Amino acid sequence: MVRLDGDGRSVRPDSLAAEEPLEIRIGGEALTVTMRTPGHDFDLVAGFLVGEGLVGATEELAALRYCAGTDEDGANTYNVVDATVRGARPALSAHRNLLTTSACGLCGRDTVDAVRTRSRWDVAPDPLTVPVAVLYDLPARLRAAQRAFDTTGGLHAAGLFAADGTLLCAREDVGRHNAVDKVVGWALREGRLPLTGHLLMVSGRASFELTQKAALAGLPLLAAVSAPSSLAVDLAEELGLTLVGFLRDRAANVYTRADRIS
Amino acid sequence: MVRLDGDGRSVRPDSLAAEEPLEIRIGGEALTVTMRTPGHDFDLVAGFLVGEGLVGATEELAALRYCAGTDEDGANTYNVVDATVRGARPALSAHRNLLTTSACGLCGRDTVDAVRTRSRWDVAPDPLTVPVAVLYDLPARLRAAQRAFDTTGGLHAAGLFAADGTLLCAREDVGRHNAVDKVVGWALREGRLPLTGHLLMVSGRASFELTQKAALAGLPLLAAVSAPSSLAVDLAEELGLTLVGFLRDRAANVYTRADRIS
Repeated sequence: MVRLDGDGRSVRPDSLAAEEPLEIRIGGEALTVTMRTPGHDFDLVAGFLVGEGLVGATEELAALRYCAGTDEDGANTYNVVDATVRGARPALSAHRNLLTTSACGLCGRDTVDAVRTRSRWDVAPDPLTVPVAVLYDLPARLRAAQRAFDTTGGLHAAGLFAADGTLLCAREDVGRHNAVDKVVGWALREGRLPLTGHLLMVSGRASFELTQKAALAGLPLLAAVSAPSSLAVDLAEELGLTLVGFLRDRAANVYTRADRIS
Repeated sequence: MVRLDGDGRSVRPDSLAAEEPLEIRIGGEALTVTMRTPGHDFDLVAGFLVGEGLVGATEELAALRYCAGTDEDGANTYNVVDATVRGARPALSAHRNLLTTSACGLCGRDTVDAVRTRSRWDVAPDPLTVPVAVLYDLPARLRAAQRAFDTTGGLHAAGLFAADGTLLCAREDVGRHNAVDKVVGWALREGRLPLTGHLLMVSGRASFELTQKAALAGLPLLAAVSAPSSLAVDLAEELGLTLVGFLRDRAANVYTRADRIS
C-alpha cells in the first residue's frame, strides 16, 4: 500500500484483517452467509444458533462439520459449516420470523416482543452485583487480550467475564456480531449456558441485535465502549438486563438495572 | 440513565440514537428487514436495491411507498416500505445468490466474482484525479456535516463528495451499511447514477460489503477513517477502485489504484 503522510508518499507492506464468507447450514440446508474473520468457526456457528434461538443447550447441538467443498485448486475452502441440531427446530431467525408475522405493522415493539418470546432464560431475577471498580477495569482487560493478536486495527472485540472481572473468553472479528457469536458459541460448547452471573463487554456500540444475543445467552449485563441505540435500551429495560454504555476512562452510563452496580 | 464517573453517581437524561426495524418489500414480497435510524427511508430502500444489483438507473425504480400498516394505537408505523421495480428483476441479494450457486466450495473469490458479474459499471477506467489536500480534508467536512445533527455519539456516517471535495450528501445511521445506502439511494433518486468521478467517505472501517456498495453505485473511490479488510482490498483491486483507509490527521493508506491521488 501507499502511505501518504502530509506531503510524504512511501510504499509499505501492511497487515489486513482477514475477511472471508462463511455459509452456515443446518442439516444441509443453507441458513445464511456471514462475512467473518476465519478462525473459531465452530464457535461462531454455535453462537449464531444461540442468538437466533435455535439452540439453547450444549446437547442440542449434535454436530458441527466443515463441508468437503473445494476451491479451484482442490483445497477445502473451510467456508461452509453444517450444523446438526437435535429436537424440534424452532422458528428461524428473528428477521425471517418477523417477515412472516408482521403483516404491515412492523414496529420496534414487535422486535422486542419477539426476543422475549424466544428467550429461554429470564435474566431479570439474576442476583449479579458488580463492584464499580470491576466494571471500570473491563475495557483495559479486553484491550490487553486484543493486543495479543491484533496488528491490523480493523477488528471488533467481545469479551466474556466472570462477576469478579476474570476474563474467560475474548474473540475478535471484522464483524461485531461475529465476535459476540464466537464468545457465546464458546460458552455453549463448554456447557456454560445460561451465562447467569456473567458480564459481556463489546468494543463498539450496543445495538438491538447485540443486546438480543446477550439475552439469548442468559447474560444479565452487557457493557459497550460506545453508545447504545434506543431499541437496545428498550429491550434491556423489558428483559431486566443491565445495559452499560460509554464505558471508558473510569466512567460509564448505566441505562437499565443500575442496581446491579455497587 | 445513571452516570458513573470515578466514585460519583448521578441520574441524568440522555439522548439515544433511534433504532427501528425497516422491512423492505419488492412488489409486496418481503425481501429483508434492517435495523435502521428512521428518516430518509426511501433513500435507504433505493440505495439498498442498488447495492444488491436490483436497480441501476432512476427509471427502474417506479415507485416507493409506505405500507398502510398500523401499530396497536392505530398509527402508521412507517416501518414497511414497498418498492415497485421496472423490468425483469435480476437475481436477488448477493448472499441469496451465493447460497444457491456455491455448492460446498464457497470462497472469497466467489464473492468477488459475484460483484464483478453483477455490477453494471466499470470503475477501472474512471479518470478521477484527487489532489491529496482534498483527500485530507474529507474527514473534517464529513464531521462538520455530522455535528449539525448528532448529539448521541451512536451514529455511523457516510458522505458523498464531488472530485473537488464539495460535500453533496451526508447521512447518519445506527448501521454503517444503512448510512451508505441512504447516500447512494439519494443519488439514484436524483438521477446521478453512475457516480463517475465522485468520492465516498465512511466513518468506520471499509468492509467487503461497503466496497461492493460503492462499486455498484459506480464510485471510483472509497475512503474510510479506519482499516479495510482483506477481502475489501481484493475486491477493490479486482475492480480498479481506489480504496483509502486510516484517513485521518492529514495522513492515509492507499491500498489500491493510488495513481488517482495527485
